[in-house]
Amino acid sequence: MPIRTVVWGENVHEQKNKVVAGVYPKGMHWAIADALNTDSGISASTATLQEPEHGLPASRLAETDVLIWWGHAAHGEVSDEVVERVVEQVWGGMGLILLHSAHFAKVFKRVMGTPCNLTWREAGERERVWVTSRNHPIAKGLPDHFELENEEMYGEPFGVPEPQDTVFISWFQGGEVFRSGLTYKRGAGNVFYFRPGHETYPTYHDANVQLVLKNAVHWAHNPAARIQDVTAAPNVPVDMALEPIEERGPRLHHDGEEGFR
Amino acid sequence: MPIRTVVWGENVHEQKNKVVAGVYPKGMHWAIADALNTDSGISASTATLQEPEHGLPASRLAETDVLIWWGHAAHGEVSDEVVERVVEQVWGGMGLILLHSAHFAKVFKRVMGTPCNLTWREAGERERVWVTSRNHPIAKGLPDHFELENEEMYGEPFGVPEPQDTVFISWFQGGEVFRSGLTYKRGAGNVFYFRPGHETYPTYHDANVQLVLKNAVHWAHNPAARIQDVTAAPNVPVDMALEPIEERGPRLHHDGEEGFR
Amino acid sequence: MPIRTVVWGENVHEQKNKVVAGVYPKGMHWAIADALNTDSGISASTATLQEPEHGLPASRLAETDVLIWWGHAAHGEVSDEVVERVVEQVWGGMGLILLHSAHFAKVFKRVMGTPCNLTWREAGERERVWVTSRNHPIAKGLPDHFELENEEMYGEPFGVPEPQDTVFISWFQGGEVFRSGLTYKRGAGNVFYFRPGHETYPTYHDANVQLVLKNAVHWAHNPAARIQDVTAAPNVPVDMALEPIEERGPRLHHDGEEGFR
Amino acid sequence: MPIRTVVWGENVHEQKNKVVAGVYPKGMHWAIADALNTDSGISASTATLQEPEHGLPASRLAETDVLIWWGHAAHGEVSDEVVERVVEQVWGGMGLILLHSAHFAKVFKRVMGTPCNLTWREAGERERVWVTSRNHPIAKGLPDHFELENEEMYGEPFGVPEPQDTVFISWFQGGEVFRSGLTYKRGAGNVFYFRPGHETYPTYHDANVQLVLKNAVHWAHNPAARIQDVTAAPNVPVDMALEPIEERGPRLHHDGEEGFR
Repeated sequence: MPIRTVVWGENVHEQKNKVVAGVYPKGMHWAIADALNTDSGISASTATLQEPEHGLPASRLAETDVLIWWGHAAHGEVSDEVVERVVEQVWGGMGLILLHSAHFAKVFKRVMGTPCNLTWREAGERERVWVTSRNHPIAKGLPDHFELENEEMYGEPFGVPEPQDTVFISWFQGGEVFRSGLTYKRGAGNVFYFRPGHETYPTYHDANVQLVLKNAVHWAHNPAARIQDVTAAPNVPVDMALEPIEERGPRLHHDGEEGFR
Repeated sequence: MPIRTVVWGENVHEQKNKVVAGVYPKGMHWAIADALNTDSGISASTATLQEPEHGLPASRLAETDVLIWWGHAAHGEVSDEVVERVVEQVWGGMGLILLHSAHFAKVFKRVMGTPCNLTWREAGERERVWVTSRNHPIAKGLPDHFELENEEMYGEPFGVPEPQDTVFISWFQGGEVFRSGLTYKRGAGNVFYFRPGHETYPTYHDANVQLVLKNAVHWAHNPAARIQDVTAAPNVPVDMALEPIEERGPRLHHDGEEGFR
Repeated sequence: MPIRTVVWGENVHEQKNKVVAGVYPKGMHWAIADALNTDSGISASTATLQEPEHGLPASRLAETDVLIWWGHAAHGEVSDEVVERVVEQVWGGMGLILLHSAHFAKVFKRVMGTPCNLTWREAGERERVWVTSRNHPIAKGLPDHFELENEEMYGEPFGVPEPQDTVFISWFQGGEVFRSGLTYKRGAGNVFYFRPGHETYPTYHDANVQLVLKNAVHWAHNPAARIQDVTAAPNVPVDMALEPIEERGPRLHHDGEEGFR
Repeated sequence: MPIRTVVWGENVHEQKNKVVAGVYPKGMHWAIADALNTDSGISASTATLQEPEHGLPASRLAETDVLIWWGHAAHGEVSDEVVERVVEQVWGGMGLILLHSAHFAKVFKRVMGTPCNLTWREAGERERVWVTSRNHPIAKGLPDHFELENEEMYGEPFGVPEPQDTVFISWFQGGEVFRSGLTYKRGAGNVFYFRPGHETYPTYHDANVQLVLKNAVHWAHNPAARIQDVTAAPNVPVDMALEPIEERGPRLHHDGEEGFR
């Protein structure tokens, strides 16, 4: 069965800015989903901020293997309820891929536990993406580096925890560097941040970028059944202990109670 | 100058439960602070949930090198504003030490980005804490293992990210194991979780536990000046680029503007 | 195509000790390989110390996707040449799974860069293996814990680097704990250490242990083509620089030379 | 007591190449040691390849808190016995700092367990070193970036394991990037790799580079007593078990024996 992938797009710039609308006539989310759908192992659809529950009701997330997120101008409009819903699914095993300005998306900050900030410059300068982890599944089929002739600059320090793997680092024409591809594990969920993708440039039409996204979907997919009780903290009654023990000393709780949260 | 340490205590069980009040007449927070103050390199005071702003106004946090947190019954009563204030100070360099049931404290969940759950049993059983990282600064002066004759059991899986260092793992009489000492880095802040410390047992009067806490304060202390602009994402104007570049292509932002968050 | 797996067995105890020969009449290596071959996605064969080049000539390793290693009494008899050959294949993408007493195998110490030591006791005591990373691919289909009624004890501290993921931690009847399942990445190769498997007990006949081994083979398999030049450090001549630069200042090397090693 | 630091220099280029001898009349090792000695908390001396036991007899290493290593042309001439001696001291708690071309030093490859390779170009091009971990102790007092106008280029992929912390990443004029400051923990020893320092340029006379080296010495210093039995794997006799157990089943070893290595 193909990997059920949802590309979430904020869909604001595409509606308000002619340049962006010109580069991505169907919206950035559909440009990405269309590219993913050329891989027979992936089945991609889209969701946007403007839909009810931002297009991410619980029923849909339950059938989503990997969620891709692009946001920028409207991070603050994403409801906290949807954010928590997404994050719990990630902990339960849903893959999560954050693109470019989603470094400031609530869902990313929520799973990182850090500010996720950086420096930036919008000058259409050259970005060169270097593979730093040879033969990492996300770098499959890529050359050792590739260039994007026009991109926004993001510069270090990038306010994130040290990753599981540093897959890409970018060189910028104006003199900065940035860790452009980082993997994390949060609960049973695989998380990948990928830097390129400023809205005014045709980045998501680039063949290497599309290959990274396809690879990342395969990498992020955890085929195990989603964990249902992912935040539960079950009490183990004394008489159910695996080794025989006798209760000793004072206690605050009753057997099998839920505990404080 | 000694390390300015604040021991934050929820201070609920001590007021409501005679057993806890008997074990910790001045409250758990003062038992911990008194122990820390026997180390001439540490200057410890306390703060509690019941004080205005939970005893943690911005002015006090600005002068706190390391914050220790014990909470259990009233995690939900801690204001989100104080939580964000604490977390930003951690990112800026304040050390943070979480004790026992603080695995479910808002501040811990906030910096971990994971559910932080576990299994548990309150039977006064034996816990044996093993040092897994020889000569780690937090294990300084400890034997290779030590025992707590009566403790609450916490069992794996512990819902946290893989740590920077696994310093302790506990063996429980009833058959479980638990990663009892874990270090993390969040921004410039050092974070340490330490498992023992159930309120009905005299754990914080134990000499080995007190030594761990002293060591942890020294380890968590980042002597660099606190970062002030820890969430800023500054724009670098084109004419300030370190290498000369010319602006190319369309742009969405103006030079020096704040960007979307 | 099934994952081409070679189970390397030291094959010493099986020849010299009647108990071991009784538990594993075909040798431990064949017990493991036979179990793996019940998975249609795996094609397992064996190699032993006593064969020419220990059964691991370069031509065979080139066609091996995952190598499993069990050694104990004869670590010192493994030739350094074969060790380097194996390690280079790991860096190039071959998976490597180390079992039990292979914690002291040359190949494991070589890729860890640490002493890999531990404490031990041979008393046939109970081991309980806890899953610490829910839904990790290596834990697929396992219960949250499983028991081995008779095993050798290995105790912390385990002299290894902090892993990429801690998948299992063991509880021992005699009071110790041990990190029983640890993952690492070395170059393009995935490395997994799995603790159970003392030669005098029927551990490799246990259904849960066999499931771990099958899962580990799938996890360790990197389907990308093996990297051929995995230790090369190529010179980039000045006139091949991606951005135009002019040579400046004194130099020691000539364009395109090999450099010092 | 100041941190007892030994700067090990290969001392080959300084003897054979007039340019290098001109830049470093006392040798690179003394240039570094002299710089460190301006910090009252550090007491630095030197050792070289040409001395008996390369200047690193066991008695000296026992009194060395931090060892700094610069090598290039003669990696192969370093005796394996000295390498093992150094590595065991690192595991026991001695700090180790590797400079520039020491990426291919035997001691570094030995503790990494990876090829440690990279790409390179000697063109005297500009390197800009970015701090990627704000307020990391090794970055204390540094600006957010600093430049070295003439340096050798090292390019990714750098064949090392994912580090504990990525402290610096370099931008190169010719279009490459490189992880220039990486920390690791090996046993009780702190390990730091720092990229800059090509022999034909005055890099070790640069104030920012000298500050990094001083900071790194303080960071790498583990004040705990050196572990003496760092590779021991002690047997725990059955009657010494912490929880009472009875011996069951067949066994291969005798109580208290040394075990196989």
